Amino acid sequence: MEISELGEFGLIDRLTAGLNTVNPSTIRGVGDDCAVLRNHDTDILVTTDLLLEGVHFDLTYVPLKHLGYKSAIVNFSDVYAMNGTPKQITVSLGISARFTVEHIAELFSGIRLACEIYGVDLVGGDTTSSRQGLVISITCIGEAPSDRIVTRGGAADTDLICVSGDLGAAYMGLQLLEREKVASAGRKDFVPSFDGKEYLVERQLKPEARRDIVEALAKAGIVPTAMMDISDGLSSELLHICKASDAGCRVYEDRIPIDYQTAVMAEELGMNLVTAALNGGEDYELLFTVPLHAHDAVSAIPGVKVIGHITKPSLGCAMITRDGAEIPLRAQGWNPLKGETDK
Amino acid sequence: MEISELGEFGLIDRLTAGLNTVNPSTIRGVGDDCAVLRNHDTDILVTTDLLLEGVHFDLTYVPLKHLGYKSAIVNFSDVYAMNGTPKQITVSLGISARFTVEHIAELFSGIRLACEIYGVDLVGGDTTSSRQGLVISITCIGEAPSDRIVTRGGAADTDLICVSGDLGAAYMGLQLLEREKVASAGRKDFVPSFDGKEYLVERQLKPEARRDIVEALAKAGIVPTAMMDISDGLSSELLHICKASDAGCRVYEDRIPIDYQTAVMAEELGMNLVTAALNGGEDYELLFTVPLHAHDAVSAIPGVKVIGHITKPSLGCAMITRDGAEIPLRAQGWNPLKGETDK
Repeated sequence: MEISELGEFGLIDRLTAGLNTVNPSTIRGVGDDCAVLRNHDTDILVTTDLLLEGVHFDLTYVPLKHLGYKSAIVNFSDVYAMNGTPKQITVSLGISARFTVEHIAELFSGIRLACEIYGVDLVGGDTTSSRQGLVISITCIGEAPSDRIVTRGGAADTDLICVSGDLGAAYMGLQLLEREKVASAGRKDFVPSFDGKEYLVERQLKPEARRDIVEALAKAGIVPTAMMDISDGLSSELLHICKASDAGCRVYEDRIPIDYQTAVMAEELGMNLVTAALNGGEDYELLFTVPLHAHDAVSAIPGVKVIGHITKPSLGCAMITRDGAEIPLRAQGWNPLKGETDK
Repeated sequence: MEISELGEFGLIDRLTAGLNTVNPSTIRGVGDDCAVLRNHDTDILVTTDLLLEGVHFDLTYVPLKHLGYKSAIVNFSDVYAMNGTPKQITVSLGISARFTVEHIAELFSGIRLACEIYGVDLVGGDTTSSRQGLVISITCIGEAPSDRIVTRGGAADTDLICVSGDLGAAYMGLQLLEREKVASAGRKDFVPSFDGKEYLVERQLKPEARRDIVEALAKAGIVPTAMMDISDGLSSELLHICKASDAGCRVYEDRIPIDYQTAVMAEELGMNLVTAALNGGEDYELLFTVPLHAHDAVSAIPGVKVIGHITKPSLGCAMITRDGAEIPLRAQGWNPLKGETDK
């Protein structure tokens, strides 16, 4: 059977079917942003990401330092998405012959900068040659008090659905970078034009993990009922939360936070703005649910927006458009095992 | 600067120069078989390995199930090498288009079998497409009581140097498989001949981690002063222990354990047997040091052999040959960043 028939999540389901755990320290395995290992009253969170040249990044326009920074950030984001704090990472690199020591030092300087800013220790890894372009595999270990862990599975009917920041900008940044790459082909003196779109480029090349939101939630005394980070697009992640929580949802088109530059770029490219915001991916914003009574407290946190609410599962998952129509949510986010057409 | 000028360890030294840790839970970072994270009186061990098609394995003669098994085992081995117990792994896969669901299920069945046998839980990972052949990145998390962790750095003058099992067989297995691969080129009806050399093939394709030795040491009340697993060859690993422990060593050629099949194969290939045993790599046996007074207890453990002793650092690291000559030990083990000529 072709792997594309199953896609990433279908393949993972197949591979992990009937998988049991035997160690008492294993609290939660496959299926959330992180695995959860218990040790006394502290939970250890573990997450890992594999980034391959030509699939996840294009060194034509991604500077190595930015790549290193982002590779670390996407892992930190998964730990914050469980309401934890990233503490350590391991970094494995497969390096092909065209890279020099200076190149790899540049990549590493980005990883080390991210570690410095987020207070994370680089504790190990593996380094080898590659015949296949650059390979980056990072595993992040985080911590959280056992009673503070937030999974995808706790959202309940009437809970409010919240997102941090704005959506779709990283995707538009990618479109912009790809456009300039095409325009630059064969022209040595080409200077890409990002005027007025710097935010989009920054969101694509140098995302941040929302530690500030996790800290603000803690300060406000709010423990989300469910949470995850938005890496594959809002639609896909909402469906994950609703499936894990056995719930439905309604989100409102006019509540989805979108930056002005994102809107301008979508207009320029003739793309549907809301589709980009729903399915764009790589935002690394937090998507979370809180009980209804937390409405005022959560609304008071800068950068957090309530975009809808959780429903009974029988109502399904849908977006209410500006004109009041209900459109079922579909996972059209980036599926790295289904090929470019799904992007 | 070309990466080959520095080699793997030189590059790692360069990349991690001046690296500090900021989290109190980080006890030990880069530089041993595992990182060590402390949590109350338990230490969490973390190790990771990146395996790339064409560099670490050749699917012409490596069955996918064996590859999965070995990929897990090499990580378990690193945890045992710190006197710990592996508990969880994450598995990340980069899968190129020529693989079907059945192929990946076969690979995974080997990983799951290793997990079952060693009592390890598979708790997460990442799955993506690859344009570059198969990529396998595994991270293993283990546990040990804080006072039982064994690093590379504790060997002291007069300590006995011990190894488990026998050395060089996995390397000879690789030579044999490569020979049969060459012989089979272009011949569809080719049947490889492994008669009388099954042990060598098994050592290469299906190594085991020496949990039994770690358990036997514990039962005998022996805590090694230093320990690591032999993945790059005895010479290389002895030099690591001596460097980390600020010590020298003497090992005796006639004490190095070598299987009969290894000797026959070396003879057939016209290779120096001791060189193969010293530098072959991929044995995944344990190399450890114990205080002199543990001589009788350690000698009584089946499969453990005393091969020499630790000296003052000023004496350097050397092997005493059968005719009494002293030959300095050199790290000629497999260096994946120095190219094939070093192999």
